Amino acid sequence: MRITTLAGGVGGARFLRGLLHHVRRSTDLQGTRLTVIGNTGDDITLFGLRVCPDIDTLLYTLGGGVHEGQGWGRADETHEVAGELAQLGATPSWFTLGDRDFATHIYRSQLLGQGMPLSAVITLLSRRWGLDAQGVSLLPMTDTPVETHVVVADTAGGAEGGRRAIHFQEWWVRHQARLPAERFVVAGLDRATPAPGVLDAIRTADLLLLPPSNPVVSIGIILGVPGVRDAMRGTTAPVVGVSPLVAGRPVRGYADACLAAIGVESTSSGVAGLYADFLDGWLVDEADPMPSGIRGRAPQVAHRPLLMSSVDAAADIAGAAVELGVALRARDRSV
Amino acid sequence: MRITTLAGGVGGARFLRGLLHHVRRSTDLQGTRLTVIGNTGDDITLFGLRVCPDIDTLLYTLGGGVHEGQGWGRADETHEVAGELAQLGATPSWFTLGDRDFATHIYRSQLLGQGMPLSAVITLLSRRWGLDAQGVSLLPMTDTPVETHVVVADTAGGAEGGRRAIHFQEWWVRHQARLPAERFVVAGLDRATPAPGVLDAIRTADLLLLPPSNPVVSIGIILGVPGVRDAMRGTTAPVVGVSPLVAGRPVRGYADACLAAIGVESTSSGVAGLYADFLDGWLVDEADPMPSGIRGRAPQVAHRPLLMSSVDAAADIAGAAVELGVALRARDRSV
Repeated sequence: MRITTLAGGVGGARFLRGLLHHVRRSTDLQGTRLTVIGNTGDDITLFGLRVCPDIDTLLYTLGGGVHEGQGWGRADETHEVAGELAQLGATPSWFTLGDRDFATHIYRSQLLGQGMPLSAVITLLSRRWGLDAQGVSLLPMTDTPVETHVVVADTAGGAEGGRRAIHFQEWWVRHQARLPAERFVVAGLDRATPAPGVLDAIRTADLLLLPPSNPVVSIGIILGVPGVRDAMRGTTAPVVGVSPLVAGRPVRGYADACLAAIGVESTSSGVAGLYADFLDGWLVDEADPMPSGIRGRAPQVAHRPLLMSSVDAAADIAGAAVELGVALRARDRSV
Repeated sequence: MRITTLAGGVGGARFLRGLLHHVRRSTDLQGTRLTVIGNTGDDITLFGLRVCPDIDTLLYTLGGGVHEGQGWGRADETHEVAGELAQLGATPSWFTLGDRDFATHIYRSQLLGQGMPLSAVITLLSRRWGLDAQGVSLLPMTDTPVETHVVVADTAGGAEGGRRAIHFQEWWVRHQARLPAERFVVAGLDRATPAPGVLDAIRTADLLLLPPSNPVVSIGIILGVPGVRDAMRGTTAPVVGVSPLVAGRPVRGYADACLAAIGVESTSSGVAGLYADFLDGWLVDEADPMPSGIRGRAPQVAHRPLLMSSVDAAADIAGAAVELGVALRARDRSV
């Protein structure tokens, strides 16, 4: 089976680690190939180095090197580089980068500086993390540099009604999404082209999965790469999504603040509505109401416990998503 | 008193640390301002980051952060970044960079990438290391990127008489100067201009000192920046040099291999001959013969123990150089 997924950072990575665990334990899924299309919309240049937070979280999590407690960054990290940069007065100080994480960014920046496309750099990083050995291809959504900025009220200087745009990471990490976001501006997205293999991976998949990633600033950004949403609409394979809400709230991160910024209610119906033009199956947390009033075609909905409290729990959720997808394929074929 | 020096890495840094110690302990030298013109000829770009080995050795040594045993790099360093870069297969592996040292290079590279001249970056680094508080201005010899390459025999492929050029650091650090050098090629040196303040510091100094730095690949390169040698010749202040040889041999490094490459004998006379057009005073190790046959004007020679076995020993040597310079100034004035 060829499975293709779009994915953001921590939630996507944990879901996909669960999926790989489920594939390993399921005899009927042996030989499954997984293509992960990762969000690069929240990439940022820090200290002159290109940082790809979501891609790196995917690499570290699927490669077994992630800091479990944080969900991002490397386990057992030291912070000597960041400490010395602080001594030098280098900014910003609100983005935590460990020493071995710095090595990833140095390596990537050097290769990008030599003209290597990001997708080729990620192929090299994937090898270091043993993703190919697990049957996983990790692709960036695009090789075009894209950066998400957040338009917030500018209260400095007392100017009424003023606006300023800050980098998504500043809004997310520094301000913890507490500054009300008026909208997201994704610089470069309209000129971006899907990275090599992205559209093919969507078109030729047997099953498409949307992990419980942020529907606005992760999956929403990937869908905004010209051609990607059309490919999702056009694929004949079932598309099964997993609601990022558990008991009506995001488990971590600030999906609710992101949904509010685009005027969508923070419910599993609201999220499913964002995918309504291509969604075939939708997993909803058992503590959440059965979605109603999803615009567009109505997806097949299943209730499951969606808290990824362990790798096994994530594997069960991923298994339920695959199961729903397989059922939808069988139904499509019988029509 | 305004003292200006040209300096390479470890030898220069240890001499200058001794000089600062001597200034602090000498009541008649209070208020002395020291300008250090540092060699950037062996700068190298590693992992996409600009590394200035001599400048950093000067910063770390004068700032109290150097690894005493090595003579270069930071004390109490960790090597997490380099370890991860090795995991990634990034090359080269023969140049040791510690984590906090990496921070220096990241910081410098970011600022250079933003268009800041190297001299301005070094001003910021000097502040972090408290050089200004010690009355020290550290200048790079030039803001123009310059790189020393070494022409060696190319024995690969069996081509007889073949030549190849390798970066100076590869020759020095990786091969420990064991590959016979045919000549040094300093890419960019002919187009380099002295960094702001360099020529003024030479012209307006009361005393010019040449530390026991490598006469070929450190001081020789600085003298090769167009305008610097002429300024040395033109200054009215005495120029006092310290022989880099102790008991006829370089204390560390491979000055003998460098001298051989340019056809100069590895003696204190040979080295003094390289400075003959401007040298007024010359400190020679007490175990070395009194130099003879120095071409050009004959410098005033003094014998001293020149082994910098401690900060105090280095201070005594620096004190002897200053003393010789003061005597030469008095003589010039009395003429």
